[in-house]
Amino acid sequence: MDINTINSYLDSHRSEHLAALTAWLRIPSIANNKDGACDRAAAWVAGALEALGAAVRVIATSCQPVVLGRRHVRDGAPTLLIYGHYDVQPAEPLGPWLSPPFEPVVRDGWLYARGADDDKGQTFTYMMALEAFVRTGTPLDVNLIFLIEGDEEIGSPPLEAFLRDHQAELACDAIFISDSRFFAQGTPSITTALRGVSNGEFTITEANQDVHSGMYGGVLRNPLHAACEIVAALRDVDGRVAVPGFYDDVDPLSEADRQAWAKLPFDERAMAAELGLSTLGGGEKGFSVLERNWARPCLDVNGIVGGYAGPGGKTVIPSRATVKFSYRAVPRQDPRRIMQAVRQFVTERVPEGMTVEFDIGPMNPPVVLRQDTDAMHAARAALRDVFGKEATMIRCGASVPVAEMFQRILGRDAVMMGFGLPEDNLHGPNEKFMLEQLYQGAKAVAATWMNLAATPG
Amino acid sequence: MDINTINSYLDSHRSEHLAALTAWLRIPSIANNKDGACDRAAAWVAGALEALGAAVRVIATSCQPVVLGRRHVRDGAPTLLIYGHYDVQPAEPLGPWLSPPFEPVVRDGWLYARGADDDKGQTFTYMMALEAFVRTGTPLDVNLIFLIEGDEEIGSPPLEAFLRDHQAELACDAIFISDSRFFAQGTPSITTALRGVSNGEFTITEANQDVHSGMYGGVLRNPLHAACEIVAALRDVDGRVAVPGFYDDVDPLSEADRQAWAKLPFDERAMAAELGLSTLGGGEKGFSVLERNWARPCLDVNGIVGGYAGPGGKTVIPSRATVKFSYRAVPRQDPRRIMQAVRQFVTERVPEGMTVEFDIGPMNPPVVLRQDTDAMHAARAALRDVFGKEATMIRCGASVPVAEMFQRILGRDAVMMGFGLPEDNLHGPNEKFMLEQLYQGAKAVAATWMNLAATPG
Repeated sequence: MDINTINSYLDSHRSEHLAALTAWLRIPSIANNKDGACDRAAAWVAGALEALGAAVRVIATSCQPVVLGRRHVRDGAPTLLIYGHYDVQPAEPLGPWLSPPFEPVVRDGWLYARGADDDKGQTFTYMMALEAFVRTGTPLDVNLIFLIEGDEEIGSPPLEAFLRDHQAELACDAIFISDSRFFAQGTPSITTALRGVSNGEFTITEANQDVHSGMYGGVLRNPLHAACEIVAALRDVDGRVAVPGFYDDVDPLSEADRQAWAKLPFDERAMAAELGLSTLGGGEKGFSVLERNWARPCLDVNGIVGGYAGPGGKTVIPSRATVKFSYRAVPRQDPRRIMQAVRQFVTERVPEGMTVEFDIGPMNPPVVLRQDTDAMHAARAALRDVFGKEATMIRCGASVPVAEMFQRILGRDAVMMGFGLPEDNLHGPNEKFMLEQLYQGAKAVAATWMNLAATPG
Repeated sequence: MDINTINSYLDSHRSEHLAALTAWLRIPSIANNKDGACDRAAAWVAGALEALGAAVRVIATSCQPVVLGRRHVRDGAPTLLIYGHYDVQPAEPLGPWLSPPFEPVVRDGWLYARGADDDKGQTFTYMMALEAFVRTGTPLDVNLIFLIEGDEEIGSPPLEAFLRDHQAELACDAIFISDSRFFAQGTPSITTALRGVSNGEFTITEANQDVHSGMYGGVLRNPLHAACEIVAALRDVDGRVAVPGFYDDVDPLSEADRQAWAKLPFDERAMAAELGLSTLGGGEKGFSVLERNWARPCLDVNGIVGGYAGPGGKTVIPSRATVKFSYRAVPRQDPRRIMQAVRQFVTERVPEGMTVEFDIGPMNPPVVLRQDTDAMHAARAALRDVFGKEATMIRCGASVPVAEMFQRILGRDAVMMGFGLPEDNLHGPNEKFMLEQLYQGAKAVAATWMNLAATPG
């Protein structure tokens, strides 16, 4: 009994696995909704893990419940923590969906449904792998902990407290997260660094009430104008963020990384064309798109609130204007220092007599994940065996705060082995997951586990 | 039978007049509402005029009905057109009201209700005056046309067409509008010039969809930033609007006006303090507050729409940003030329590759009203007699488009004789009208009519 037993079990149970995943995808488990769907999705996970012999608890949090499943084989065996999430993004707008988001359907080898990639499909590969071991009676000398949460799409508010509260029972040798993507079809990838997102807003106030622009136009100052002047100052003509210190502590890009990234199958023109553009003109000059997205911090205004936003016009001079902004720090940067610098930059530019107030949101640190671990070696070998190609080490411009929390609280660097593809359109309409990625992904998970079981603990 | 008969009738019927006005104010005739309240308010006007012997029609329009009342004494007598409006501003927010907006109540000599000043109370002075002539049998050798509309607070959309359609029957020698205010208590005033308000919006578009700032931050350009840069450029460091040609054709302020305005009882510090400010720092340097408000054009951004405006943050890079703006032209300026200049200024600053679209709203011309008319002389004499003080000729920074329409379509310059006071808080909570202004206002109306009847037609 070896990996071939596992692989042939997986090959011969494709329709059963597709049917099971489909049942899970039918549950519209949107994190923000309190309609019971998340409870049902959590119960589905619990049932599936229990059927495979795991000891399962569904643990209530301030938001949606966490499913904690444990398959303990023996003390001393390597313990692997599997992270996934059963919540999904809202499906709206519904107009562009070719089939209803919670009625999964296969077209041309792709499974279409909200959550098909993110993250039910990817999480399910681990259950498929475990099932293959259990049903074929193949020994697997690793302890498994499944931690499947239901708030990822709203930023996992209860997760940090949950990790602290359950630190001892979550102790493990390695962590796996499959909530990312291949760089391209045929390019298996592991994500090794992520930017950390922070956000906040500032409100500039002049008068104590909105006033009529007939009575006060040309008389009173307009805080919307002041807000625009500050936003305009945030960026210099070369697209660099003009806040002093914004680029402090950025880990310089190695020449090796630079060259490796330049060789990746990346088509800037195609990416631009998808957005209806001819070029991607944002960010700093002198850096490629991947460099700007993976290795350079960025800052964006995400919304401006003040005055009238309805249809037509209204001759109001608003009393206040709010600017919502977010930035993404790259490895080695401290997001709190950046926030301080932004605050100072803004405050210095508020016109005399106007007041400014800040409302600071979460500040998530960036993370770099170690590549010299047993788990990473095991995963790379598995990806090579299953997909026939060496895995590419990539980064991600977005943030997966749980990776940084695991590093900080559990002291382990996760292996981010994603099976999605760039075209999966997660968060958008017609989200899909390629069935071949599902079936091969399960094999890669199984092979990774076997590789770790064979490794001296 | 002379003016003393009229005045003593008005003095002895104060409580009846207050009761009648109160009944009208109880009708929540908000122009935008299609709940029948405007119809009831129009019917109330029609009934009141009919009871005074006028021939009345209630004429449907695309919005609320216009009440047209006519009291014809003889061909050849001077014909006076009285303009007013029965619609009122919405009362929201209700929190700050000390008594419900549509349950009129008298406190300390003031009548509190939505519409008490604007414009039911002021319009009612004309009905009180007519009643005094009719009930005392005092001859009044003028023909009267009452034109009381119901859409003033939403910009009188049907009025221009109405004036054109009824041009012949609205032919008159003079027009009176009482929808303005004394400059201060004890300072009777006639408004002789108004700015004209215009508005529009422009939308700058980059991508064909909103995108996630993790995937595209530092990669894609942000149209909100571009919008802010354009808004910031609209104004120079001295508060002047930087659009070339914005100040073209401004009628220069005469030294006489400048000196007269400087003598008006205006307390900049008090006006600022009401808004929670120490100074009024908007507009151009080198001009007083009254000069900036009455004689200088202004431009304001009234709202910016793009990205996320809800609570908290959202890491979106918006595909588009819309800037809503309005400006006020002063006499001799052509608002269409200004719009053209603004369009060009904005268009030149849209970053290459982004697109811009304009949505242009109404462009109302400014208006200057002749002061050398019989009607103006009659009104000034009446105000002097009733209030014991020469009327002050003032201007208004806001716009009353109907005054310009009357001038253009009916060929008559209205006399804007207002009885409100600056503290009436029209459009705001606790709108009020001083009862003494109501009672004395009716006397001033009656005296004006008598003065005109005595004037050779």
